[in-house]
Amino acid sequence: MNTLIVYAHHEPSSFTSAMKNLATEVLSRQGHNVLLSDLYTQGFNPLAQKWDFITVTGEHFNYMLEQKHAARLDWAFSPDIVAEIQKVKEADLLLIVSPLWWLSVPAILKGWFDRVLAMGVAWDNDKIYENGLLRGKQAMLIAAASHPTDYFQESGHHRATPIQILHPINHGTLAFCGYSVHEPFVAMNVLAVTDEVRAQILHDLQYRLEHLLDSPQWLIRY
Amino acid sequence: MNTLIVYAHHEPSSFTSAMKNLATEVLSRQGHNVLLSDLYTQGFNPLAQKWDFITVTGEHFNYMLEQKHAARLDWAFSPDIVAEIQKVKEADLLLIVSPLWWLSVPAILKGWFDRVLAMGVAWDNDKIYENGLLRGKQAMLIAAASHPTDYFQESGHHRATPIQILHPINHGTLAFCGYSVHEPFVAMNVLAVTDEVRAQILHDLQYRLEHLLDSPQWLIRY
Repeated sequence: MNTLIVYAHHEPSSFTSAMKNLATEVLSRQGHNVLLSDLYTQGFNPLAQKWDFITVTGEHFNYMLEQKHAARLDWAFSPDIVAEIQKVKEADLLLIVSPLWWLSVPAILKGWFDRVLAMGVAWDNDKIYENGLLRGKQAMLIAAASHPTDYFQESGHHRATPIQILHPINHGTLAFCGYSVHEPFVAMNVLAVTDEVRAQILHDLQYRLEHLLDSPQWLIRY
Repeated sequence: MNTLIVYAHHEPSSFTSAMKNLATEVLSRQGHNVLLSDLYTQGFNPLAQKWDFITVTGEHFNYMLEQKHAARLDWAFSPDIVAEIQKVKEADLLLIVSPLWWLSVPAILKGWFDRVLAMGVAWDNDKIYENGLLRGKQAMLIAAASHPTDYFQESGHHRATPIQILHPINHGTLAFCGYSVHEPFVAMNVLAVTDEVRAQILHDLQYRLEHLLDSPQWLIRY
C-alpha cells in the first residue's frame, strides 16, 4: 500500500515530528511504501496565485474554475502542484501530520489543501463526498495541540470537541474529496507533558497505526 | 471608531470584493476611519518562519514561544508583522472579508491569523477568551461561499451549519483573543446567483453594517 505523509512542522525535535517519524517507521515496517511531503523543508508555497496555472482562462480570476480548466488540460498546473497531485493520486492512504494552530492547520498546510486538492482532480461539480474523485482512498489526521484535554469539551474553553473543531478538515476537506476518514489522533498538551506521558501518547499512536487496516476506527466511511 | 478590514481575494470583480467595497463605503459614510489590509495586493506572506523574529531564542524552534519572546522585546517581529499588529491594535472593529475555501479561510488569511495574532500581543498564557489581550474590541466575519444554503445544514452535504463550521475562526481565533464577535455574514452560492439575488444579499449586508453598533447581533459577547 502506498502512503503519503503530509507533514507541517519546522522543528525536528517537536512532538509533531516525533509522530511523523513514528508513522513513517510503523508503516514502513509493515511493508508499505511511504512517501513524504515535508512542507517546510521542501519550501512549499501556500499561496494560491495566477501562476499556479500554465494558462489562465477567465477575464475574472476564479481560482477554483482555473483549477478545473487546468485539470482538463492534463494537469496544466505549476510543477510544484503537479508533484503533489501525483503523490496524492498514488497514495492509498493519506496521513496529515500537523500541529493545531487556531484550532486548524498552519497556513502552509491550508495552502496545500487549497492548491493540491484541486477542482477537477480531487472533486468536481457532482463529484463530492461519497462521489468525490479520490473515493477508494483513506485519510487520517494526526495532530498536536498545545492545550490540555479539558479545553476541548463543549464545557471547556474551546466550547467544542476535537471532532467538532476538526469538522472542516475531516469532513469538509478529506471526505469532500471522497476519502474514507479515520478517527483523528490528537495529542494534547504537547508542550507541557512529562516524558512518561509523551511516551504513552506515542505508544497509543503506534497501536492505532499498527491496527489501522485490520481494525479501522472510521469517522466517515464511503 | 477605527475599523480594520482584512480582505483576502485576488479578484476586484468577485463577490468578496463587492462586500469589502460595501463595508468600506458604509463605515466611511458613518464617519469611521477605515484601514485596509488587502492581503493579495500587499503580497502578504502567510508562512510562519524563523525570520519573522529579530532574534530567535530557543534551541528548539517553537513559533508560539518565539512570538511571546518577540512581544516582550517591544514587538521584535519582522516589519510586515509589526505593520499588521499596529493596525490590529488601533482598530476598535476588525472585519474579516474572505471567501470560504475548504470550509475555512484561504491560506493567505490563515497565515495572517498565524503570524499577526501573536502570543504576547493578542493573547497570552492566562489571557485568552474573556481575558484575551484584545478585549474591548469587536470583530465580524463576512464570507462568500460557492455552495448553496442547503449544503450548510446538519442534514446537508456539509453536515453542519455556518456557525458550527466557522467555530475555529469566530470562537477559537477571534474570541480567543478577547474580541466580542458579531454573528457572521455568509453569502451563499455566490458564483451562481442572479443579479437580483446578488443585489439583495448586498442590501442585507448593508443593513447589517449600518446597524452594527446600534443593534448588534452578538455571537460571543465579552
